[in-house]
Amino acid sequence: MTNTFGSIFRVTITGESHGKSIAVVIDGCPAGIPVDKEDFVNDLNRRKPGKAGTTKRVEDDYPFIESGIFNGYTTGAPILIRFENRDVKSKHYDDIKDYPRPSHADFVAYRKYKGFNDYRGGGHFSGRVTVGIVAAGVIAKKLINPIKVEAKVKSIGGKKDYADLIAEVAKEGDSIGGIVECICSNVPVGLGEPFFYSVESVISHLVFSIPGVKGIEFGAGFRCAEMKGSEFNDILIDSEGKTLTNNAGGINGGITNGNDIVFRVAVRPTATIFKPQETIDLKTGEKATVFPKGRHDTCIALRVPVIVEAMTAIALADLKLLSLKDNLF
Amino acid sequence: MTNTFGSIFRVTITGESHGKSIAVVIDGCPAGIPVDKEDFVNDLNRRKPGKAGTTKRVEDDYPFIESGIFNGYTTGAPILIRFENRDVKSKHYDDIKDYPRPSHADFVAYRKYKGFNDYRGGGHFSGRVTVGIVAAGVIAKKLINPIKVEAKVKSIGGKKDYADLIAEVAKEGDSIGGIVECICSNVPVGLGEPFFYSVESVISHLVFSIPGVKGIEFGAGFRCAEMKGSEFNDILIDSEGKTLTNNAGGINGGITNGNDIVFRVAVRPTATIFKPQETIDLKTGEKATVFPKGRHDTCIALRVPVIVEAMTAIALADLKLLSLKDNLF
Amino acid sequence: MTNTFGSIFRVTITGESHGKSIAVVIDGCPAGIPVDKEDFVNDLNRRKPGKAGTTKRVEDDYPFIESGIFNGYTTGAPILIRFENRDVKSKHYDDIKDYPRPSHADFVAYRKYKGFNDYRGGGHFSGRVTVGIVAAGVIAKKLINPIKVEAKVKSIGGKKDYADLIAEVAKEGDSIGGIVECICSNVPVGLGEPFFYSVESVISHLVFSIPGVKGIEFGAGFRCAEMKGSEFNDILIDSEGKTLTNNAGGINGGITNGNDIVFRVAVRPTATIFKPQETIDLKTGEKATVFPKGRHDTCIALRVPVIVEAMTAIALADLKLLSLKDNLF
Amino acid sequence: MTNTFGSIFRVTITGESHGKSIAVVIDGCPAGIPVDKEDFVNDLNRRKPGKAGTTKRVEDDYPFIESGIFNGYTTGAPILIRFENRDVKSKHYDDIKDYPRPSHADFVAYRKYKGFNDYRGGGHFSGRVTVGIVAAGVIAKKLINPIKVEAKVKSIGGKKDYADLIAEVAKEGDSIGGIVECICSNVPVGLGEPFFYSVESVISHLVFSIPGVKGIEFGAGFRCAEMKGSEFNDILIDSEGKTLTNNAGGINGGITNGNDIVFRVAVRPTATIFKPQETIDLKTGEKATVFPKGRHDTCIALRVPVIVEAMTAIALADLKLLSLKDNLF
Repeated sequence: MTNTFGSIFRVTITGESHGKSIAVVIDGCPAGIPVDKEDFVNDLNRRKPGKAGTTKRVEDDYPFIESGIFNGYTTGAPILIRFENRDVKSKHYDDIKDYPRPSHADFVAYRKYKGFNDYRGGGHFSGRVTVGIVAAGVIAKKLINPIKVEAKVKSIGGKKDYADLIAEVAKEGDSIGGIVECICSNVPVGLGEPFFYSVESVISHLVFSIPGVKGIEFGAGFRCAEMKGSEFNDILIDSEGKTLTNNAGGINGGITNGNDIVFRVAVRPTATIFKPQETIDLKTGEKATVFPKGRHDTCIALRVPVIVEAMTAIALADLKLLSLKDNLF
Repeated sequence: MTNTFGSIFRVTITGESHGKSIAVVIDGCPAGIPVDKEDFVNDLNRRKPGKAGTTKRVEDDYPFIESGIFNGYTTGAPILIRFENRDVKSKHYDDIKDYPRPSHADFVAYRKYKGFNDYRGGGHFSGRVTVGIVAAGVIAKKLINPIKVEAKVKSIGGKKDYADLIAEVAKEGDSIGGIVECICSNVPVGLGEPFFYSVESVISHLVFSIPGVKGIEFGAGFRCAEMKGSEFNDILIDSEGKTLTNNAGGINGGITNGNDIVFRVAVRPTATIFKPQETIDLKTGEKATVFPKGRHDTCIALRVPVIVEAMTAIALADLKLLSLKDNLF
Repeated sequence: MTNTFGSIFRVTITGESHGKSIAVVIDGCPAGIPVDKEDFVNDLNRRKPGKAGTTKRVEDDYPFIESGIFNGYTTGAPILIRFENRDVKSKHYDDIKDYPRPSHADFVAYRKYKGFNDYRGGGHFSGRVTVGIVAAGVIAKKLINPIKVEAKVKSIGGKKDYADLIAEVAKEGDSIGGIVECICSNVPVGLGEPFFYSVESVISHLVFSIPGVKGIEFGAGFRCAEMKGSEFNDILIDSEGKTLTNNAGGINGGITNGNDIVFRVAVRPTATIFKPQETIDLKTGEKATVFPKGRHDTCIALRVPVIVEAMTAIALADLKLLSLKDNLF
Repeated sequence: MTNTFGSIFRVTITGESHGKSIAVVIDGCPAGIPVDKEDFVNDLNRRKPGKAGTTKRVEDDYPFIESGIFNGYTTGAPILIRFENRDVKSKHYDDIKDYPRPSHADFVAYRKYKGFNDYRGGGHFSGRVTVGIVAAGVIAKKLINPIKVEAKVKSIGGKKDYADLIAEVAKEGDSIGGIVECICSNVPVGLGEPFFYSVESVISHLVFSIPGVKGIEFGAGFRCAEMKGSEFNDILIDSEGKTLTNNAGGINGGITNGNDIVFRVAVRPTATIFKPQETIDLKTGEKATVFPKGRHDTCIALRVPVIVEAMTAIALADLKLLSLKDNLF
């Protein structure tokens, strides 16, 4: 638990924003899956900043495969992938280290760890650590093949057409939230374990570990609260589980029903904005003003889709391995 | 995992709707907490049906304490609490066992377990098993004292004033969804463990184990996707972490910040409705019609608040015990 | 952990010697295994006292199957089996509750749980709780079929022919230790998971949970410390892994090699003896004498074989389910 | 599980003998423990070969601290320590890769992982991975302070004075087993969790993960099987738990009793010897001869003490953090 998740397919994440490296351990992965460094390029690039609305910090995100892969295949031993931190500018953080940024983890990290936390760049609370998650996701996606997991930005600031909005918000030095939708297709019937390891439980557990996520809904989601059963219920139309509608988001009783898994995630605006904000001085408890510099995303939702995909693939990989027992007798 | 959840404070749930009993094991509970049978009455009654809009099946829900409590106190040994199933009418289920009810777990349970599942009353997928969760919640609430956890129905079918709506829906033989809101007060700073055991991760994991939940949002929730950082950010106003607003729902970076934890849960309409619905015959794969009889809730959201409270208290109990290590050095 | 063990096949144990009942939850068990109450009789009888050298407390050990089994088969849902405690005489324990018996858990239980522990009959530390383990073992044995697990008393008090010795020791009011040997046959190659879930790790973990076990050795065991590699090494004689000797006890690198798993367990003499022994008064710290009455085994090793078998079957069941992933690619 | 162990203080190990690096993740470690690179030198040197009887492969074993330590203290975030493999000679392994060495993991690894395993130097099954364990042990020892853990070679080949024996065995190209004894002092009363997380369970679980261990015994150990209760029982002589004798090895009912924890470990002779041995060809199943070259220990028991200490400290660190809950009420 805590920095490890999973029952059989287990992912462990380490590292801080400005530490030496971010690393991920993938344990419980079966032997014989072909893995090449090139396989990581696409997803790592999707997570990378550099687009409008994302931070100017650019890491080359080269995946050093330290163990668990040999002659181009997984070996069954734990896989360690490491990403060095290079484009690090910690000075900005020394300036503000006593002034917690509103809605950031600065305050809680300081208090929980009695000031021993690595505060630079948010330390272990930084979105930077998700680079390891994306790498684990690449392997998980291979494991769950032929299931396909695809996540996209659905809206930013409530708009589906959001390019101008982002430019405007960036110019103000402000930030903006958004919604990401994820769809998994080719899903077999029977993934998910009652009572506490339902598909929704596992996916939501992982997705809420992504910094900035504040909500998740499956299928009809919050709209279901306004629906009658006769509207909401998905009518079975074949013996493989296909249904006429998909208000359940592909999951009944916590178990996949053979239809697409569909869910949406709410991502809050980046906490760090380039405007002076009131706060308190951690050392004295006095009122203070914090005016962060540095490099930050205007809209983290833009970078979240590939991370949501990775988390979902990790969830499904674990559930797939757990479901092998269902065919024993 | 699966039917056990927790790192230190661990809850294991067993039982089926029409089996002999539902039981819950609470392990990792410290010794010395006063527990009396009377302590369970209030929460068990809140979960019980009998109100308008709830099922006519009435169990007395007497908590047989089998172990772990001695002379009125927890002993440190695992606590087993058992609820006998008595008001069981399985006949209705024999009639429909080959005809999976739309949006119910019938189909997935049959397929996942190759027909070996106990189909009566939904078996282990029944809301009936949440009686054990409520009992575990009673003990968890004592453990997290002075934190208070309170959940309430916020709306049914989109309405805050919903009594007439429920009567009407019941008359139609239909069902209706709703929203439950939960607020935790007196929360200390520092509960929650990065990266994978964030407060949102743990609460959502548990809450999505409750049958019928399809969405969860913390603080401003999905609204945050339309907000700018300058609107969303909660300004710190004292050195104990109090903020001017609470858009974060009391959690930053996955860790409690000392403000109230606030979240809302979307509960879908009951799957079983008293109307003929199309389905398929599990044995032949042919089209069929299912017209369930039996006793079912018109609106399960009405019974969910005390279950959400229990799950939240279980989450916070585990996080509290995990946080003890933070004061060692 | 603590009262739950296992990765996929997970066993949870509850109960105290003089509480209402002992219970065991078996979770993660695949659906479709035939289970009948009669299946438990033989192993439960083997654990039962009543033979020379065993306690006079006799429970009928009727296994109440509360959940997880339906129409004679496992359902995939958690199995709860409960044993009521009936032949309970707690008075003897009230007399000695302030006087911890030497080498018993009385003292540590009192201190660890600040006196809140159920002291009667040793409470949760009693060998009585192993009745649940035996029940779990019955199911685990079915799951690992065709592997056979057989444990026997190898010696008591250093003697292979020990009947007279036991009678003599019983007459003295004393107790005596012994050695139990366990052999598993028909074991496939490839069970066991490096690094921390080696076959020896999992078996020893479980076996040391049996009250009274103080040592375990696999294959040549402690004798290997006096051997040269050229003597110890087991020569492979076929491509299925069969070896000329079995000094490794069927395990290399923590993984089964296709030969019999062989190990021996050292069981200490029963702590409770019918002789006055010096101790201290828990309340005052003063010297005292404890002279236990009640009913106790002269030699617990006599009852341990079926418990060792159960623990071994539980270990192998979990390892078997974990190894399913090895055949995916 | 598998490559992660622990409930709160969790250790994850990765790497292969001839891969890029060995690494260890220590998660759940409280913030505020001073850690300096110098702290690792002594224990890493004790594990290093170079003494008579140990392999000629010499790594500098420099601990790259990648995360979790900042300004000389643990931060509360996961600690990743990495050791690069440099003195790697894989050629010898290409020569013998189809000829499994008797009593080595070669055969089982090949079969379990369908030939995808990294066979070079034993891959993930190599004693090389214990370098990470030693590093984790250094931190665990700080966490359990003032408990002291000390392990020593007790005998080699049955002799307490073994220097000449080792020289002789080395000259023959053979190998030899030994016994290591571990003593923990300053142990508080109350570590250990019934039923499945007894002190013996946790220590033995970890110790059997060390390559080459075939037996463990606590206190009087196997001798207890020949003792009467009146001889074995340890008489309490003060209210802190001190006993006249220590046949229980400091543990009753799976819980520390305040006396020294004492146990002994049997280490088999190194599997690889410089003599021709019969085996089978993995590819053809035909009989073959394997005559390994390379660099190997004559007696691995000589290097095991510091690894046993590390494993014991890891066990006690986890048990110490688990026991914090015992003081809540």
